[in-house]
Amino acid sequence: MKGLDYPKGFRVGVASAGIKKPGRNDVAVIVSETLSDVAGVFTTNLFAAAPVKYCREILQKNMQVRAIVVNSGNANAGTGEAGYKDTVEMAEITAHELNCRSGEVLAASTGVIGRRLPMDKIRAGIKSAIESCRDISHGDSAASAIMTTDTVEKIAEREIDGIRIGGIAKGAGMIHPNMATMLCFLTTDADLPRNLIQPMLKRVADRTFNCISVDNDTSTNDSLILMANGTAGKVDEKRFESTLEDICDELAKKIVADGEGATKFVTIEVKDAKNEIEAYKAADAVATSMLVKTALFGNDPNWGRILAAVGRSGAEIDVEKVKISVCGFTIFEKGGPLELDLAKVSERMKTGKIDIEIKFGLGAAQKRVFTTDLSREYVSINADYTT
Amino acid sequence: MKGLDYPKGFRVGVASAGIKKPGRNDVAVIVSETLSDVAGVFTTNLFAAAPVKYCREILQKNMQVRAIVVNSGNANAGTGEAGYKDTVEMAEITAHELNCRSGEVLAASTGVIGRRLPMDKIRAGIKSAIESCRDISHGDSAASAIMTTDTVEKIAEREIDGIRIGGIAKGAGMIHPNMATMLCFLTTDADLPRNLIQPMLKRVADRTFNCISVDNDTSTNDSLILMANGTAGKVDEKRFESTLEDICDELAKKIVADGEGATKFVTIEVKDAKNEIEAYKAADAVATSMLVKTALFGNDPNWGRILAAVGRSGAEIDVEKVKISVCGFTIFEKGGPLELDLAKVSERMKTGKIDIEIKFGLGAAQKRVFTTDLSREYVSINADYTT
Repeated sequence: MKGLDYPKGFRVGVASAGIKKPGRNDVAVIVSETLSDVAGVFTTNLFAAAPVKYCREILQKNMQVRAIVVNSGNANAGTGEAGYKDTVEMAEITAHELNCRSGEVLAASTGVIGRRLPMDKIRAGIKSAIESCRDISHGDSAASAIMTTDTVEKIAEREIDGIRIGGIAKGAGMIHPNMATMLCFLTTDADLPRNLIQPMLKRVADRTFNCISVDNDTSTNDSLILMANGTAGKVDEKRFESTLEDICDELAKKIVADGEGATKFVTIEVKDAKNEIEAYKAADAVATSMLVKTALFGNDPNWGRILAAVGRSGAEIDVEKVKISVCGFTIFEKGGPLELDLAKVSERMKTGKIDIEIKFGLGAAQKRVFTTDLSREYVSINADYTT
Repeated sequence: MKGLDYPKGFRVGVASAGIKKPGRNDVAVIVSETLSDVAGVFTTNLFAAAPVKYCREILQKNMQVRAIVVNSGNANAGTGEAGYKDTVEMAEITAHELNCRSGEVLAASTGVIGRRLPMDKIRAGIKSAIESCRDISHGDSAASAIMTTDTVEKIAEREIDGIRIGGIAKGAGMIHPNMATMLCFLTTDADLPRNLIQPMLKRVADRTFNCISVDNDTSTNDSLILMANGTAGKVDEKRFESTLEDICDELAKKIVADGEGATKFVTIEVKDAKNEIEAYKAADAVATSMLVKTALFGNDPNWGRILAAVGRSGAEIDVEKVKISVCGFTIFEKGGPLELDLAKVSERMKTGKIDIEIKFGLGAAQKRVFTTDLSREYVSINADYTT
């Protein structure tokens, strides 16, 4: 799979600049051969990283860009004015090499927070990455170039009515709506109305990336960027949006499946709620409960913790009407537990795929959240991240 | 230290009923020789346990009781109508043995959620516990009788102007405002105006137990009960409240120090905020961030995670004015990091006592929260709790 250069008119270059361990790609440039329409959704964290601030400013002025330059290994967040200048310089170097204006280049960074970018390495890395894609595109390598604690590359492709969409994502920790320590880049050769793609991308993000949680932490760097260069012509908008949601859903699930230390892929579905907000409150409380997540890790059908999380979530419930199922077994109903062989539930949990269904019995709204368990490995990964 | 029978006119009985492992005390009765004024603060979880519902009903009618009966090893939560009847029977048996009305007995339970109480064992246990205190009181054993995953007994005593206060608490996991998987019982021989102790206890709870967090989960069973039997006479109310806060603060800190798998005692202090609510939002986000907590476990001064937690907390901040210190070292100021030998900070963190100070530079309000780190041991303890 190639990902970002699967649609027509896109090239991808990568380089190993030495920001991460030697030999690992850590700089990527995503280039459209022509000016491309663009849309972006970014973190809500007030300590937004320098590249996030930069992209927001660019997108307020420009709705067309030529390229995105990305580095991993350093988030360039919490780095003040100096860090912002570093981002601007990243865009300028890229623009210079591509013979375009620096306002036509977006930037993204991911990695440790609070350290200045090693600009000598970055400068050389960007030049080398652009050089690498002059003759041959490296779409297959870009996904690994943006990885930090990720263990697998996250690439997806779709085709619809002769139009192609390619996407790559990274994210494993600090994952929570809105949005995640997540970078996701999407390219398409569709020709779409320019004022349509930004609201469309936001809608799709809300239904996909904003429904996943690994550890309840919204990062400083989350960026989701879609480039649409129009090379392949018009497309039915509804069909396109549905396909865009589909590819984002695949990438979002890949992020959860690769969650730091995760041994389980957990789907939490709240049904029959009065409205989506109430449903989300409960789903989110269950998805972020350390006690629920450790029990899932231990294949322990300790449903009392699910109950406790729902009860403290602030969601409007009627205790007598709540019904809880785990892996298809109804466990709690009418205010009390059902007779059940919990060992059977535990066996089912060991498959690694756990479905938790919570019915409120109050209305017709529902909300689904994807998450992981909490393992000893998660603690190990995160206890020694910078030292 | 004796704890609950340190004040005059209180007796404590304990028994090993076989709910927990054989040989461990798991039933306790706290008896006032005369009718005692009483105040209680309980969980806000909508799935409140049977004993919590029962106590709330009693306290709406009665402001005087003779005893509290407690069991550990089973929370009697999520057990429906049948579970409620079990709690009522616990009170009735106690009342029968003490020759009082069942409405003069409160009840509390702690342990696994969602299982019926083993009533045969409970009945025998209560009788045996009451029998045990006819001749000699066992204040020193009550703290262990209410333990679940706790590793140490939590007892505290105070004396002021000839008035005594004794207290015991349990809690190690599912600890979060409001309030915690926490039980806390306090006795005093002070003679206080009856309509004063309930609001006083609530105020003190807000300043102590509601400022601690181990794992962000508010349980179904949290109960804080104060019995004041008046045996030792009047006391200055302000001096009493201050001493009550002092003893609750000690017990709350003991809960944090005994947090499941904790290797660190962490104080998070947000200062110079516009108001206490904004300060609390940030302190709470830092205290409950799994990424911050794992970094603290690893003695990793990865302050970017503190920054990220503050930034997503919803607290009103001015990024340029925020100042962050860890263990006395100022790490972040004026939007960027300070030059600093992070190895020195890491060394200081290894002492096990970590102070995080976050100054907003916006006002005069402040809020302090106590919490723990997140260790592999926490995961192990909670992965295999019921299986």
